[in-house]
Amino acid sequence: MKIARFSTEGEDPRYGILDERALVVLAGDPMYQGFETTGERVSLKDAKLLAPVIPRSKVIGVGLNYAEHVSEMEEHTADDPVVFLKPNTSVIGPEDPIRLPADIGRVDHEGELAIVIGSLAKNVAKEDFASVILGYTIANDVTARDLQARDGQWARAKGFDTFCPLGPVIETEIDPSDIRIETRVDGDLRQAASTNEMVHDIPTLIEFISSIWTLLPGDVILTGTPAGVGAIRDGEVVEVTISGIGSLRNPVIARH
Amino acid sequence: MKIARFSTEGEDPRYGILDERALVVLAGDPMYQGFETTGERVSLKDAKLLAPVIPRSKVIGVGLNYAEHVSEMEEHTADDPVVFLKPNTSVIGPEDPIRLPADIGRVDHEGELAIVIGSLAKNVAKEDFASVILGYTIANDVTARDLQARDGQWARAKGFDTFCPLGPVIETEIDPSDIRIETRVDGDLRQAASTNEMVHDIPTLIEFISSIWTLLPGDVILTGTPAGVGAIRDGEVVEVTISGIGSLRNPVIARH
Repeated sequence: MKIARFSTEGEDPRYGILDERALVVLAGDPMYQGFETTGERVSLKDAKLLAPVIPRSKVIGVGLNYAEHVSEMEEHTADDPVVFLKPNTSVIGPEDPIRLPADIGRVDHEGELAIVIGSLAKNVAKEDFASVILGYTIANDVTARDLQARDGQWARAKGFDTFCPLGPVIETEIDPSDIRIETRVDGDLRQAASTNEMVHDIPTLIEFISSIWTLLPGDVILTGTPAGVGAIRDGEVVEVTISGIGSLRNPVIARH
Repeated sequence: MKIARFSTEGEDPRYGILDERALVVLAGDPMYQGFETTGERVSLKDAKLLAPVIPRSKVIGVGLNYAEHVSEMEEHTADDPVVFLKPNTSVIGPEDPIRLPADIGRVDHEGELAIVIGSLAKNVAKEDFASVILGYTIANDVTARDLQARDGQWARAKGFDTFCPLGPVIETEIDPSDIRIETRVDGDLRQAASTNEMVHDIPTLIEFISSIWTLLPGDVILTGTPAGVGAIRDGEVVEVTISGIGSLRNPVIARH
């Protein structure tokens, strides 16, 4: 099932289940109120899709989780996953512009599979990982690469407003262990990998992260980016595609 | 004016203005609904004070912002403030226990002045800093020192559940530019400084941070810790006192 959050002209955001051409409207936020539908259908062409979840607590990133990307960054794989936080103010939805702040140097795309947490969770064992997950979506962990190196801490470089595109939908029924992830800039393929190349797989990430932090419904975990990261520039369009979920497409606009 | 958030037995949390012995109950969350009172007074002995704010978006930390602390950490002062994020799931209130996870090595106290943001804010000029601040409270930026060094990123070391005590009140009328901050462990003075020793002062921090992130009401900025950080251990009590605001006291409990 593909869950979208959307707005139509003049209406507050609502949730819907996406079928081929339409959104079947849900009675409430499926995170808290389940999947009861109102019976109303909204045509996709009349809806603007929004980020499918607004994290109320945490967007957690995992660094250096694909071996080839670790090599291209001239880093080493750590025993424990490297985790960081992005603020919820960085979240945007499909087709929303990624705005590049002035004078911060190179900014990169990082296409990633994102986990959407569905329930309160602490100290979850690997084998129970699926029980705390609502579903999966697509993320672009946009990163100011020069600032990342200069600051040491990644909070600024990865935390600017608009630096966390999410969407277009939350897929609740996919097996995420071996699906294709591709990132394109203006149609050119830049990143291509399978999620089975992750250094720390999803059960391991859930166990590790929930041993540190209490996870809340709506928390999002970005599972790391494969090799092929590179700069995005004013006027380009970046698109992250994951098989079985969809494509997350965002134009890039430089602030002047 | 000192604003507290509190609970009494069997009641949902409420807000109140603290006078000598009592809380004058407010009609709603002062962040959004102002300072209208209901007329009810609750005796301090009948109230449990809670963290005075629940950050809905960001707890922002500033690293290395007192020169003597920079020296004790064998670090260098950067031109820009070093910023990081703590998750809102790390927040606890006065008298709540700081729980030390098992097997993570040394954990330190870091007493700090905390800014509570009162309005939506982006690109705030230094001279307008006060317009976006609701008031000031006290924080303990509890830090797993060994993990901080090992991880490189500070999100884990500073982000564990209970690692962000806040309180006891938000003081709305204080001039924070030269006030005394002291941290005691079991009554022994460990940290003592004036906020006038900050490398980057509060107007500078607001300008810098709001140039990166959109700030939302309820966001909290921890302004950095003075020299004298050190370990806290099972059974100890850590207390951070800031003149004009109060004392934030938390027992320390090790998980086994």
